[in-house]
Amino acid sequence: MRLLIINPNISESVTALIETEARRAASPSTQITMQTAAFGVAYIETRFEALIGAYATAQLAAEHHAGHDAVIVAAFGDPGLAALREVLPVPALGLTESALATACLLGHRFSIIAISQRIRAWYREVVEANGLVGRLASIRALDRPLASIGNVQGEHEEALHALCERAVREDGAEVIVLAGAPLAGLGRTLHGRLPVPVVDGVSSAVRHAESLAALQPGKAIAGSFAPPPVKPNRGLPEALARLLDGRAPS
Amino acid sequence: MRLLIINPNISESVTALIETEARRAASPSTQITMQTAAFGVAYIETRFEALIGAYATAQLAAEHHAGHDAVIVAAFGDPGLAALREVLPVPALGLTESALATACLLGHRFSIIAISQRIRAWYREVVEANGLVGRLASIRALDRPLASIGNVQGEHEEALHALCERAVREDGAEVIVLAGAPLAGLGRTLHGRLPVPVVDGVSSAVRHAESLAALQPGKAIAGSFAPPPVKPNRGLPEALARLLDGRAPS
Amino acid sequence: MRLLIINPNISESVTALIETEARRAASPSTQITMQTAAFGVAYIETRFEALIGAYATAQLAAEHHAGHDAVIVAAFGDPGLAALREVLPVPALGLTESALATACLLGHRFSIIAISQRIRAWYREVVEANGLVGRLASIRALDRPLASIGNVQGEHEEALHALCERAVREDGAEVIVLAGAPLAGLGRTLHGRLPVPVVDGVSSAVRHAESLAALQPGKAIAGSFAPPPVKPNRGLPEALARLLDGRAPS
Amino acid sequence: MRLLIINPNISESVTALIETEARRAASPSTQITMQTAAFGVAYIETRFEALIGAYATAQLAAEHHAGHDAVIVAAFGDPGLAALREVLPVPALGLTESALATACLLGHRFSIIAISQRIRAWYREVVEANGLVGRLASIRALDRPLASIGNVQGEHEEALHALCERAVREDGAEVIVLAGAPLAGLGRTLHGRLPVPVVDGVSSAVRHAESLAALQPGKAIAGSFAPPPVKPNRGLPEALARLLDGRAPS
Amino acid sequence: MRLLIINPNISESVTALIETEARRAASPSTQITMQTAAFGVAYIETRFEALIGAYATAQLAAEHHAGHDAVIVAAFGDPGLAALREVLPVPALGLTESALATACLLGHRFSIIAISQRIRAWYREVVEANGLVGRLASIRALDRPLASIGNVQGEHEEALHALCERAVREDGAEVIVLAGAPLAGLGRTLHGRLPVPVVDGVSSAVRHAESLAALQPGKAIAGSFAPPPVKPNRGLPEALARLLDGRAPS
Amino acid sequence: MRLLIINPNISESVTALIETEARRAASPSTQITMQTAAFGVAYIETRFEALIGAYATAQLAAEHHAGHDAVIVAAFGDPGLAALREVLPVPALGLTESALATACLLGHRFSIIAISQRIRAWYREVVEANGLVGRLASIRALDRPLASIGNVQGEHEEALHALCERAVREDGAEVIVLAGAPLAGLGRTLHGRLPVPVVDGVSSAVRHAESLAALQPGKAIAGSFAPPPVKPNRGLPEALARLLDGRAPS
Repeated sequence: MRLLIINPNISESVTALIETEARRAASPSTQITMQTAAFGVAYIETRFEALIGAYATAQLAAEHHAGHDAVIVAAFGDPGLAALREVLPVPALGLTESALATACLLGHRFSIIAISQRIRAWYREVVEANGLVGRLASIRALDRPLASIGNVQGEHEEALHALCERAVREDGAEVIVLAGAPLAGLGRTLHGRLPVPVVDGVSSAVRHAESLAALQPGKAIAGSFAPPPVKPNRGLPEALARLLDGRAPS
Repeated sequence: MRLLIINPNISESVTALIETEARRAASPSTQITMQTAAFGVAYIETRFEALIGAYATAQLAAEHHAGHDAVIVAAFGDPGLAALREVLPVPALGLTESALATACLLGHRFSIIAISQRIRAWYREVVEANGLVGRLASIRALDRPLASIGNVQGEHEEALHALCERAVREDGAEVIVLAGAPLAGLGRTLHGRLPVPVVDGVSSAVRHAESLAALQPGKAIAGSFAPPPVKPNRGLPEALARLLDGRAPS
Repeated sequence: MRLLIINPNISESVTALIETEARRAASPSTQITMQTAAFGVAYIETRFEALIGAYATAQLAAEHHAGHDAVIVAAFGDPGLAALREVLPVPALGLTESALATACLLGHRFSIIAISQRIRAWYREVVEANGLVGRLASIRALDRPLASIGNVQGEHEEALHALCERAVREDGAEVIVLAGAPLAGLGRTLHGRLPVPVVDGVSSAVRHAESLAALQPGKAIAGSFAPPPVKPNRGLPEALARLLDGRAPS
Repeated sequence: MRLLIINPNISESVTALIETEARRAASPSTQITMQTAAFGVAYIETRFEALIGAYATAQLAAEHHAGHDAVIVAAFGDPGLAALREVLPVPALGLTESALATACLLGHRFSIIAISQRIRAWYREVVEANGLVGRLASIRALDRPLASIGNVQGEHEEALHALCERAVREDGAEVIVLAGAPLAGLGRTLHGRLPVPVVDGVSSAVRHAESLAALQPGKAIAGSFAPPPVKPNRGLPEALARLLDGRAPS
Repeated sequence: MRLLIINPNISESVTALIETEARRAASPSTQITMQTAAFGVAYIETRFEALIGAYATAQLAAEHHAGHDAVIVAAFGDPGLAALREVLPVPALGLTESALATACLLGHRFSIIAISQRIRAWYREVVEANGLVGRLASIRALDRPLASIGNVQGEHEEALHALCERAVREDGAEVIVLAGAPLAGLGRTLHGRLPVPVVDGVSSAVRHAESLAALQPGKAIAGSFAPPPVKPNRGLPEALARLLDGRAPS
Repeated sequence: MRLLIINPNISESVTALIETEARRAASPSTQITMQTAAFGVAYIETRFEALIGAYATAQLAAEHHAGHDAVIVAAFGDPGLAALREVLPVPALGLTESALATACLLGHRFSIIAISQRIRAWYREVVEANGLVGRLASIRALDRPLASIGNVQGEHEEALHALCERAVREDGAEVIVLAGAPLAGLGRTLHGRLPVPVVDGVSSAVRHAESLAALQPGKAIAGSFAPPPVKPNRGLPEALARLLDGRAPS
């Protein structure tokens, strides 16, 4: 099983975190290809940054998906995910969708723990777009500056742990979702220290991708996730134009 | 990885269908134990039948979960699932929850295809209880008597296929969920004949169970999925009493 | 008018509380039969305890409903209620449904006052299942151990009163629902001491039962509350099997 | 128990229908006072007609509530009901609220059967305002002119019966609500001819009023259903001014 | 463009505030007619006061709309608005609807700042009736007595400003809605002092009214906002009867 | 007042339609700048096409917004709108948001008329994202191929008119929203031929833009619509980088 994982932001240190957790979560026979956004921002907290990350991700997916059995958009918030699901011939997964799917198997209401105050509104809108706001207990987030996006866990482990505890005790969280690629792997660090199950986006996405590759649910050829109708386009990167024109990747 | 799968109804023919599909979906190293309800009805269509199935399932889970890494309640509608999640030390999964989790990774709106008109209202309430009614495109069902619960697929394959097609064309379904253990495996039969991805409860549950066993999210010891507070009980089967008393299984 | 009231837990002291309040609320001509669960737990706080209580209640209802005009499931949370509504020839009522129906006649948003922190999640899910979460202002609960389930009111009256006050002042409650059979009758004790109307599950259920017996709305013979289709069953207590087979009670 | 029932429209023939059904539904000891709107329209189908009916009802309630134990606003749609709940010292009930409360005790989803196409949108908004649109299966209505508002039942009985049947068969209605004072009593005519329970607004309201009078839940003195803060007013009918000023009725 | 603005309460000082802000917001060519309720209360905080205000507003609208291109109901809460939309030949607008429409163009979630604790429940119900409760971050309100309804801004400016700040910081408000005619114009006073966009009901309504007059969307002649079907009426003020009878205003 | 209008697709013929309707709707003093996407597809029907359109729009907005008082994203579906709202110093508006805001001032429930079956799912998700799905009566669309995207109105006027009629008659639409830039101006053609008010996205957006420019609600400097926190970025077009870095446009 071959898996393409795309980091929608430009931070190689975050790509490394994602890769480490992905390899831990993957079955032995799974082969992983990592890609990092060629353009964009250091980490994505807002709708505008997500817009950029979505486009960068779409280009990488278009260029590199050939030969893979699934594609993971490895930023919480899932920039560009639903769009890619239309055009890719293989399953596309995101960290939020995957983490929420796992969380829903472990309890009724979940809380999301995030890396910044600013990111909360965007995450909430993504949960709303997933139709799951009725199961959202809370979104809690760090309120201090991040010295290094690649070392949020090291720097803020205790604060993050405290946020989890408060979500359980004060908000009624039955499951904790650790949100965002910078927190990939934190679930392992906190293992045994939290009173409720904990879910990580990267490992959830990797496992769901393996499952979809095994279950072979099929690609939509009708309905709103079929490839877009072929029509004139102009000025696009070659790989995107190929996807839209229904041509095989080069 | 050792998996306990419980059929909440009394039909061995349905247990056989579940087992066949479960073994196809499972990883090679997964060991599967099947159990069939000791009491109950031939197949579950209503809330009252589900109440009985839930109690039968709880007894089997209490008696047999030891030594397993996950337990699957193998009836669509998930009788007793949330209750078992409180008391079992390992993950508990159901066909509906698992199928919906998979469906949500493949499209925004899904339709459920079911075996009888009567069953529709109960399924709808289960989707509501999962907080996903906003993503439900429709529930369509056979409207003819079932000659044999173990051979619904053989007898009604074309009618079931036609229901899937209508759900896509008329209801806007982006994913099809084939509901109910009697339809286990139908997704493979219809492979390549449906215009949108198709999801099966049994295979979804098996794969999610393997994933949870691998990811080790942890068991709740606080919140509403922690084991119930120990308190006096009376008149219960020994295995249930042990679970409630927090004693190890015999 | 003859009324069967079933206590889904095993505590005779709670049955006594229910009976006292039921007799106070009932019209002079109403005859009341009390039944206490033959098996189960001292009081129900969780989904698993409710699963057990539902089955115990179903057996008692099957065995004893003959000759009654309505049946009340006398635990807040309504274990087994919707299931019984399918099979019983007379109206079935629960404490939660009845209390919420009354509360909705007295104000737009209500708060529920409960006996333990643990019980809150389950109650919330029951309100969700009733489709009334949009009118739920809050669920507040005692956070101290209960020395005696038959004397929660005596032991915690002031704390319960304080919870009511806070629900009105801080949560915007326009009606207070005192939840749980152990609080049956507390509304009378607090009469005149609360700034908003107060609703009790037991007395609401008794009055609604009398009303339904008088109004004679009819029993469903089609749709999802008709009796389940007759089909093979096995291993069930005689009274349950009779209900499923559509045979008259012995 | 003394009950004031106000017909918000000007049709004495409708008042007579209401009174007949109310007396049938009432307990023997209940005394009923009827009032008909002094101004307004023949029957209420729209928001503007309801605005007028609400004001006419408020005046009658202000003038005549003294000496009664409850007040019923006897038009489906409940014009002015929530407003009266603030100012009256006794419970105020409406046909819609009462019918929906009863229906919720009999099934999960209900359909409303109404007298005109035009009335449907207003009824739907009232169900929305009650927070119960998730339990609304459908609103079906006559599509022919009404020769006489006092004889809708006689003239259209078969058409109304057919609408009920379709609601059950096509819309999944588990309970039928016969809407509107002009249909008061139709439930008795159709008794035994419908496959699901049937609910009537007038009889439901009468029984709920008796229950509230018996249960004595108390009048709000805080929160949003307390009497409005006393403040300057001008130009109001004497009875309304008395209510606002907190003066006893003359 | 000629605009009729009706103040549903009896306070001329509030009418003056509305007029000042309306003239500031209006285009130079817009002509404004002000009307103050002939009967009612000093300011509207409750459903009952709104019922009275709605009827007073309806009379003024019926009497004075001729020759105008739009009518504004100038109380937050929009008493009578939907009703007037049925009968008036020109667009009818309200402060809440208009403010929410503007707020939705500026951010995803808004908070409402109001003049009294009591008023909060009613405002919340109006937001619910507009179907926008999912975008409501909070309603915050003054908790001190109002010495003069015409000088709330002068007396409580700092407290109102603090409420806005808290809504942004603690509730996640992305837009602030200053609610109620007594706060008309406060947005200008606070200009530059708030961290998010601020919306005022009066100025929003005036601008929307001008836009609708320019866009000419047309008056409903079918559906639920068409004029009510002509039918017998009795006892109404001449202007209301004319509207109902479909006669031209005198 | 200077207004920048961006067509997110590459069709100059659609830009011309937008411009014509915008100029008709604008006040005499409003100056309009048109821009057409430099890359993308002929018209946008799907999430993937919208992803591309969003990025093309963001670049044009970044390059050209200086000197304008508001920016309109002139494709129904509002690609990139919420993202632009964060970074632009002036109000950003979209056709969907603007049309829905106008529709909500004219009735309670609206239907959307669209140019293709495929486009319906995406539009529905946009209405969901706006939190207005409770007010959506239906989305109806043409089901025939479009010979020329610049002449949909000419080619399909009668079919579009018929869809509007059915939405009113069968779906309960109280307002019609003509969706998509290719239908800009159709509302004027149909004027007087529809039984309910009709709303057009382009003219609504132009009028709302003028209103916001006049009302000066202010730009968010806190909360989730403040400019994104400044952080490292790489590889972006100069204009986007300037926006992210908080530098003035060149």
